[in-house]
Amino acid sequence: MNQTIKHQMEHRSIREFSGEPVSDAMLKSIFEVANQTATSTGMQSSSIIRVTDPTKKAALAEVCKQPYVMRTTELLIFIVDAYRNAVIAEQNNVFAESRADMDRFFQGWTDATLMAQNVTTAVESLGLGAVFFGSILNDPAAVIKILDLPKLTFPVVGVGFGWPAQEPQLKPRMPLSMKLFENSYQFPVDVEKKLVEYDKVMQTYYDLRDANKRVDSFSLQVVKRLENPIEKRGTILQVVQDQGFNLKVSASRPKEELGKLSPFT
Amino acid sequence: MNQTIKHQMEHRSIREFSGEPVSDAMLKSIFEVANQTATSTGMQSSSIIRVTDPTKKAALAEVCKQPYVMRTTELLIFIVDAYRNAVIAEQNNVFAESRADMDRFFQGWTDATLMAQNVTTAVESLGLGAVFFGSILNDPAAVIKILDLPKLTFPVVGVGFGWPAQEPQLKPRMPLSMKLFENSYQFPVDVEKKLVEYDKVMQTYYDLRDANKRVDSFSLQVVKRLENPIEKRGTILQVVQDQGFNLKVSASRPKEELGKLSPFT
Repeated sequence: MNQTIKHQMEHRSIREFSGEPVSDAMLKSIFEVANQTATSTGMQSSSIIRVTDPTKKAALAEVCKQPYVMRTTELLIFIVDAYRNAVIAEQNNVFAESRADMDRFFQGWTDATLMAQNVTTAVESLGLGAVFFGSILNDPAAVIKILDLPKLTFPVVGVGFGWPAQEPQLKPRMPLSMKLFENSYQFPVDVEKKLVEYDKVMQTYYDLRDANKRVDSFSLQVVKRLENPIEKRGTILQVVQDQGFNLKVSASRPKEELGKLSPFT
Repeated sequence: MNQTIKHQMEHRSIREFSGEPVSDAMLKSIFEVANQTATSTGMQSSSIIRVTDPTKKAALAEVCKQPYVMRTTELLIFIVDAYRNAVIAEQNNVFAESRADMDRFFQGWTDATLMAQNVTTAVESLGLGAVFFGSILNDPAAVIKILDLPKLTFPVVGVGFGWPAQEPQLKPRMPLSMKLFENSYQFPVDVEKKLVEYDKVMQTYYDLRDANKRVDSFSLQVVKRLENPIEKRGTILQVVQDQGFNLKVSASRPKEELGKLSPFT
């Protein structure tokens, strides 16, 4: 196992930092990695907002409902950016509808996310610790306001990083056989047994976020999440539309009922 | 610069491979990295389809309009997977609406993309080469059929990899100052000058995909892309809905006109 893969295998969320600054040289490397990240059709449809203003950090912490957002040494918000290319097109007197279509949006989302992971890998390779903030999507409209995001942009994910001040356990994942399939989507025949085993494994894991208490089984976590959705998160597409993207969905096309999903008898 | 960052800075798409197999030990490491990737709220809402069937590879190459999809040594398709957790909930007699909301969808998209980048980094750290296939979204409904994807799943991006049989140039990126902002979204004052410079840089870059011809300026590439959209790509949300996700958008909410986007006078 090489050093890169070793670090990747040791990934865990670091939520408390020493406060010691990240050196300019390290930041430069990290940002260059961000810039060199793969991008859909070369269009570079993502951008980064580095948040250094304590007031804005506090406002984001409020959205995230995670006070430790404020205590990150560095905080980057990765965004869909279809605005920059629309401006470039506009400068060339091109106002094609496609500048605001959902293809643009999803390419931007993918670009932003690839960048966020690449940055996190670079951060961790330097001995720093990092944490993702998907929780900025608790209220995307608020984040748009806090960061003065123009039309045709959208917040995707945040990454906080710095020198770690905690050493959390590695969080156990479900067995690969439950998520890696060959040629077709198909659960392994013993998936129920595997899930029971994984449920037990999760119950022996401690999450530092929750006062060092053991966590629920994975199945119970799933149930609790689905039964207690954060209201604004489910209506994210409305804000996508408000940002100027054209959802282009046929309202008349009937929505099928999901029916029974489980393949188990 | 450490070895991890060195590899990240040297990322380029490899589209032709020697055909020599990737060893089982390497594949094992790569898949374990995929599994250990960060995941939104721990829900692990993504899965991987490893495509080894030449008929399926050919069908995907057809969707991608890229014959070299067939010549990848390994081909992984990363998918949104809200199905697995919906099945787990169903086993517990929970049928909460949120199992099919867009929060689930976007969490899955982010999870799948983080995984795809982490896999690519691991692949490249081993001396292998990789290429992303965003082109699977040329026709997501076709990909769903080819890979027998159930409801509440969705294809996000493909990654092909193997031992490289070409050594492409590094593709130049726009200057960081055009995509990294502090606290607010704001172009640098000399953005137009920077763009002119970058346009020139791109014109001196050769893309191996296109018979070693020089490529257009970045601005011209943007214009051409926007003026020639691939039809089905813009209507991706329709397929998302067909996969059972609840788009929840107010049809009555008026869509604002974009107006002038450019901040330039």
